[in-house]
Amino acid sequence: MNEFELIAHLTKSLPTNASVVAGAGDDCAVLDLGVPDKLILFKTDAVVEGVHFTKETPPEKIGRKALARCLSDIAAMAGTPTAVLVTIALPKKFEVEFVAKIYSGLNEVAEKYGVAVVGGETTTNPGRMLISISLLGTVPRGKQILRSGAKVGDAIFVTGELGGSLAGRHLEFEPRLAEAGWLAEHFHIHAMMDLSDGLAGDLRHMANGSKVGAILLKSALPVSRAAKLRAKESSDAKPAALAALTDGEDFELLFTVASKDAVKLLDAWKKNFPHTKLTCIGKIVAGEEVFLRDKATTHKLNAHGYVHFP
Amino acid sequence: MNEFELIAHLTKSLPTNASVVAGAGDDCAVLDLGVPDKLILFKTDAVVEGVHFTKETPPEKIGRKALARCLSDIAAMAGTPTAVLVTIALPKKFEVEFVAKIYSGLNEVAEKYGVAVVGGETTTNPGRMLISISLLGTVPRGKQILRSGAKVGDAIFVTGELGGSLAGRHLEFEPRLAEAGWLAEHFHIHAMMDLSDGLAGDLRHMANGSKVGAILLKSALPVSRAAKLRAKESSDAKPAALAALTDGEDFELLFTVASKDAVKLLDAWKKNFPHTKLTCIGKIVAGEEVFLRDKATTHKLNAHGYVHFP
Repeated sequence: MNEFELIAHLTKSLPTNASVVAGAGDDCAVLDLGVPDKLILFKTDAVVEGVHFTKETPPEKIGRKALARCLSDIAAMAGTPTAVLVTIALPKKFEVEFVAKIYSGLNEVAEKYGVAVVGGETTTNPGRMLISISLLGTVPRGKQILRSGAKVGDAIFVTGELGGSLAGRHLEFEPRLAEAGWLAEHFHIHAMMDLSDGLAGDLRHMANGSKVGAILLKSALPVSRAAKLRAKESSDAKPAALAALTDGEDFELLFTVASKDAVKLLDAWKKNFPHTKLTCIGKIVAGEEVFLRDKATTHKLNAHGYVHFP
Repeated sequence: MNEFELIAHLTKSLPTNASVVAGAGDDCAVLDLGVPDKLILFKTDAVVEGVHFTKETPPEKIGRKALARCLSDIAAMAGTPTAVLVTIALPKKFEVEFVAKIYSGLNEVAEKYGVAVVGGETTTNPGRMLISISLLGTVPRGKQILRSGAKVGDAIFVTGELGGSLAGRHLEFEPRLAEAGWLAEHFHIHAMMDLSDGLAGDLRHMANGSKVGAILLKSALPVSRAAKLRAKESSDAKPAALAALTDGEDFELLFTVASKDAVKLLDAWKKNFPHTKLTCIGKIVAGEEVFLRDKATTHKLNAHGYVHFP
């Protein structure tokens, strides 16, 4: 049973109440706590030593990444982050200066996006460091963008470039809060999520949530320089397109709009975000499968995010 | 540097914004997100294998404890819990059934207190299991009870019995949500918190937060049967009163009221909660020290929660 199957098993039937607008299964939970014009976004996410960072990662970047990952989820709902709690589980031996630097990196990104750090806790985790972030945000009532709204015929867009994030970008990416807010304000975005597990797997989550299928165009994928470089330098490395589909940790926005809005959106985007790529990478189709179309052939992308290249 | 010194160091200067009513340092953060008649309570807490539970702890009780600890913090603010996110960090090898049972125990206590489980995540933590809980609640605007409101002359009360929690109670306690709500509704509670680190240390946090001192009466301490039993059975065990002061994990309410309200409160409590002990254990005094008064002498309780018994 992989992570996604486990989560599906655990979240089959969860306690609920009148506050829940959207529970488990989207980038954030959406709650109605009675704010007249807003809904509340609620998100938790953890980074673990040896999984999301290493002993060699500069501590400021660990803290930065821990919070920025959650901010990316708030962006994916077209929300605004408000307040964060930080739980740090520390090995028995740790240097106070190292922990202070984690906070310093986290605080810096919090300041930048207007997020209050309102507490948290430290606890013991013999063997390795783990940081769990809990984030609250808001979204104008009715303006939250879920994963589940993609419609047959929609154009599929992705911001930025994909693949090779572990070469550095995963520690330095800016959460797409401004871009997502702009998109929600100016266009009717049907579905949106952030890319954390890799396009092939994440698009499948969106398709399943929306009860649709999707076709990606291999030639359209915005492959990062880092992924291309790695593929070139080592014959053991993934082909660049496969890296863009499956590396993960991209923290870019994946969203769909009616195809009639696609050109207008691209034009307006270029004016507003001239330094950030936006690419139409495919379309939503009927069915429940996700396909990759190459020049001559069409391949199925499987559930684990890996495509069977010929 | 111990946990409390580390937290003080890290929380000296944190990013803030207009939503923050009370940040780091209380049982929960208190936020104003624009709900007309309510403030938002925000809390995170983790339990770690080998620290808060063992490999032998029944999984349902692990899940139960993880959530109940946070509910106790919401109670300590006189709030009502609303929604929870659950992060489970799992060793590489785990049994799905075991994780499902953790959720089952957690879901049961969530149902009981009307809390929605709105998601979370699973991640990897080689070596041991860790569960981080993130909880949202509400409190009527202006009715939140902080640690920092204790006044000189106040009577100090504690619910239930203290000490020996690890003999079983830490896995089975009921968070004092009903009791705290009743207290806030009927009395002017000056300061309140839940007891998690042990009365001696926790009362010091309340005293420091309120810029006052306190005197506890040793003979008044409601020592649990479990603590008494252990002290009797083993000469290596802590004296029972010391256990009540320092064992921790009691998850009882510690609060103060004006001494003129003390008798009225005790009378009303007995009528409403006939099966739960409520004990006046001392009084708030000027200064900044916490003392324990024995028959003949008065001892200082030190910062680490340990009293130097003669």
